[in-house]
Amino acid sequence: MREDSKEIDAFLVSLLRTVGESLRGDSIKKKSVGTKKNRNDLVTNFDKKTEKFINSEIKKNYPQATIVSEEGYGDKVQDMSGLVFFVDPIDGTMNFVKRRDDFASMIGAYIDGKPLIGAIINVMDNEIYHGGKEIGLFINDKKIDNPKDLSLIEGLVDVSAPMALANKFNVQSVIKKSSGFRVYGSAGIIFGHLLTGKEVMYMSYLAPWDLAAGRVMCEAAGMSIVSIDDSPINMLESQVVIVGTQKVVSEALKTLKTR
Amino acid sequence: MREDSKEIDAFLVSLLRTVGESLRGDSIKKKSVGTKKNRNDLVTNFDKKTEKFINSEIKKNYPQATIVSEEGYGDKVQDMSGLVFFVDPIDGTMNFVKRRDDFASMIGAYIDGKPLIGAIINVMDNEIYHGGKEIGLFINDKKIDNPKDLSLIEGLVDVSAPMALANKFNVQSVIKKSSGFRVYGSAGIIFGHLLTGKEVMYMSYLAPWDLAAGRVMCEAAGMSIVSIDDSPINMLESQVVIVGTQKVVSEALKTLKTR
Repeated sequence: MREDSKEIDAFLVSLLRTVGESLRGDSIKKKSVGTKKNRNDLVTNFDKKTEKFINSEIKKNYPQATIVSEEGYGDKVQDMSGLVFFVDPIDGTMNFVKRRDDFASMIGAYIDGKPLIGAIINVMDNEIYHGGKEIGLFINDKKIDNPKDLSLIEGLVDVSAPMALANKFNVQSVIKKSSGFRVYGSAGIIFGHLLTGKEVMYMSYLAPWDLAAGRVMCEAAGMSIVSIDDSPINMLESQVVIVGTQKVVSEALKTLKTR
Repeated sequence: MREDSKEIDAFLVSLLRTVGESLRGDSIKKKSVGTKKNRNDLVTNFDKKTEKFINSEIKKNYPQATIVSEEGYGDKVQDMSGLVFFVDPIDGTMNFVKRRDDFASMIGAYIDGKPLIGAIINVMDNEIYHGGKEIGLFINDKKIDNPKDLSLIEGLVDVSAPMALANKFNVQSVIKKSSGFRVYGSAGIIFGHLLTGKEVMYMSYLAPWDLAAGRVMCEAAGMSIVSIDDSPINMLESQVVIVGTQKVVSEALKTLKTR
């Protein structure tokens, strides 16, 4: 009963609404910025503070659940049994720090390995994309239709900058067959573009918390999401992911060199 | 007297306000899309209709002026004497068609070759960036401060997709020294990012109407804008342009291979 889709959806929307209000306030204050692996992998006090808050709210409402999250306040999750939440407190930290827009907060809920509910807030636009296969998809309170199954030539594609610039997997051949190449720099923002047909493909190396919420919603919208070698997504590992319309992912897999 | 900065600024803001209202209405209707040179160089009825409207309003108010514009309704301008307007009715046509956001309309006014007033509307956000050296810079009615003179490592850079992917002029070495790479696909939108410090450099092959308005404002904001070989901008030719903070343009010119 506590694992009801609608109830979890409402909980995540309410939680991200609170997180968004807080981050919009924070984004105008001076930030204390630390470094993780390198200068392009920033971690701010706000990432940590936000994750602590989200995780504690989840534990309060769903004490039986486990949490996989970016900043280290989650659980050591070994398998996907039961109710599992994936938390990315600030996705697009570089945009948060440098641009003050085009960043997101994301939470995905899975039950026994099956996608249940995804929720992503575009913080500065205060738009929450949420829902899943059972209850449908919404932006804030408005139900949205599935995007059209466009082909590569009909849409814009987004590929992580290092992958595109180095032409990893021959990805530039895919980009050249599209309407155009864009780099927005936040998986959460790009999942919003995919769900509304503004982009037709995204390819990047993603951690579980980067893709969990977007995967739930893109699959519910009839889109395709696979790892680079066309194998099923492993939710407990990082991997190179291709997500897009059915047609585009099929076209891309034919063109990409994966070995 | 008719060439007064403040008066021209007010005229352009009022004109772009009207254009923006019309394009926001159009962007939800079905578009008839033709092709210019290739499928990535779209021209819509809306480009043509919008340019006709802008040019006729300019001629009505400034009959002595000449117009350089994208879609062929302007004058054959041979030199920069007198009052010259540069018009790009829809900048980022691919975004207009595919995304319904991140496109702009731009007008730049020059007097005897000197930058006078620039005006760019981010159509979907209904934000007009406008002004010049004499009167200062504004977003809608709000005066804005000049962006900080950040260095390459401190900011995000935007480079046209074909140039970045092909590593023209060794531009990837510049990208790698920055905080990150973004591709927004509209010069007008990117000029807005530069003026607010959201990006610190833009490099692309630009026609006069692509750069006229942005050049006026970026120079007024203390930024640097040069052609790829570090020569002055020629407003009657297309050219590869680097625009950004003083520090970033200086760093970029040291790293780029221009011959």
